[in-house]
Amino acid sequence: MPDKTPSHAEAMKIVQGMYAKDRFSQLLGIEIKEAEPGRCRLTMKIGKDMLNGFGIVHGGVTFAFGDSALAFASNAYGRLAVALEASISYPAPVNVGDTLTAVAEEVSLTNRIGIYNITITNQNGAKVGLFKGTVYRTSKEHLKEANS
Amino acid sequence: MPDKTPSHAEAMKIVQGMYAKDRFSQLLGIEIKEAEPGRCRLTMKIGKDMLNGFGIVHGGVTFAFGDSALAFASNAYGRLAVALEASISYPAPVNVGDTLTAVAEEVSLTNRIGIYNITITNQNGAKVGLFKGTVYRTSKEHLKEANS
Amino acid sequence: MPDKTPSHAEAMKIVQGMYAKDRFSQLLGIEIKEAEPGRCRLTMKIGKDMLNGFGIVHGGVTFAFGDSALAFASNAYGRLAVALEASISYPAPVNVGDTLTAVAEEVSLTNRIGIYNITITNQNGAKVGLFKGTVYRTSKEHLKEANS
Amino acid sequence: MPDKTPSHAEAMKIVQGMYAKDRFSQLLGIEIKEAEPGRCRLTMKIGKDMLNGFGIVHGGVTFAFGDSALAFASNAYGRLAVALEASISYPAPVNVGDTLTAVAEEVSLTNRIGIYNITITNQNGAKVGLFKGTVYRTSKEHLKEANS
Repeated sequence: MPDKTPSHAEAMKIVQGMYAKDRFSQLLGIEIKEAEPGRCRLTMKIGKDMLNGFGIVHGGVTFAFGDSALAFASNAYGRLAVALEASISYPAPVNVGDTLTAVAEEVSLTNRIGIYNITITNQNGAKVGLFKGTVYRTSKEHLKEANS
Repeated sequence: MPDKTPSHAEAMKIVQGMYAKDRFSQLLGIEIKEAEPGRCRLTMKIGKDMLNGFGIVHGGVTFAFGDSALAFASNAYGRLAVALEASISYPAPVNVGDTLTAVAEEVSLTNRIGIYNITITNQNGAKVGLFKGTVYRTSKEHLKEANS
Repeated sequence: MPDKTPSHAEAMKIVQGMYAKDRFSQLLGIEIKEAEPGRCRLTMKIGKDMLNGFGIVHGGVTFAFGDSALAFASNAYGRLAVALEASISYPAPVNVGDTLTAVAEEVSLTNRIGIYNITITNQNGAKVGLFKGTVYRTSKEHLKEANS
Repeated sequence: MPDKTPSHAEAMKIVQGMYAKDRFSQLLGIEIKEAEPGRCRLTMKIGKDMLNGFGIVHGGVTFAFGDSALAFASNAYGRLAVALEASISYPAPVNVGDTLTAVAEEVSLTNRIGIYNITITNQNGAKVGLFKGTVYRTSKEHLKEANS
């Protein structure tokens, strides 16, 4: 387990290392705007292939966006953290052409467990997804892998 | 509001009409094996572009699979139903090459609200996702649209 | 359905009318400090009969406190609103002698559905419960009952 | 950590030891009908002091009943397990005079994490609460305490 919290630069390096392998986040066009231990901000543009059967955006797209934010914020400490469970509410629909922003904020952190709220908004600032996730923090480190 | 519950054939027609417009379910390669009012069974094959930064499948993929099952099972009554909230737990990881099955079962149904449990298993029968979702049932009908 | 949002005084009257019948909130010693449409602040003192088998406070106590806040905040509009589902996370344990505060904030409101976050803190400001709830807003009014 | 899973008799002894200190479960009149590692069945009778402001039973009562079932089922392995998060849906209201039954079933168990579904029914077999909970399993043992 790392002796200290990574710097912002180290955290960004960890998260970019994850993103380089994260094919699904790439497929969705997710971009990392900021990342530090316990926090991140992502954006994504909504395309036509993200629609569901009602002509609005599939709930799985919005969830996946939140889930990536959960992974980046919680892993930016340098310890491998895996999601245990997550929930989402949809205050408003997402439409094709929207640009979404996800901001992950840490609500609680213990040695083994982290809890995060991720707020997803559209280009007008309207909330379109409220995501809450819990991660289990393993003892495995990211930086050693990243450096190898 | 429809006077009566659709037959299995009518339910399948409604769900296939939804699927034809559901670009994200198509992108994920989701297939509808069964659908009737309040219940459905779907399958999907896990490809390399569904990986996250840890080399296992992105939680958003598993969630989206459950969310499609929620939409098909709840809309098969012929009334347009939209998800209010959903939660997922991940009992075991999903790997590239796995074939997943989602079975949606109705736990509760009132005039306005439906609650569904969706169990997601892999090709060995191991549970990899436990999804619970709540839908709001609008007064809009599917069949009229489908017939027009 | 009321033509307009109640004033703070009307909202407090509605909530106090609910509290007068709410035997379980009374049993727990919950006190209403503020209530307005979509928002409220409650306090409660933790007694020995609220312990679980580990000598810390039973999760059901913390949840019930959040659930009362959900009911008061959502019903303060004057329309009868019932909880559909709720979830809670426990960032830190609650102990005998603690004084808890619950603040309910509205995240989203449509004609039929309201979503609320309730943050529960102890006397030191530490978060001990993160509660999220969804209500269904019926067409029944509170004020007529209150006035009859 | 115990070398082996407790017998049913050992599990019942652990759970009864918890119950003896669990003042809130006692206050609610919860009774333990069965308990074994990963599973339990409880009952409770609904009294007038469990009502909310609408004359139906407070959601916190139903939740607390589920939360006790979560604690007993997950701790019956002999390792101290604490709830991380829980969610509940209310398919139907609970009334004064109802006798409720909670059955906890284990959905997933790893060294550190357990996931449980608890189904709460009334005397007519109708589902009135669907509870899902996740516990963190510490390394502390119950039996040593129980024997001391």
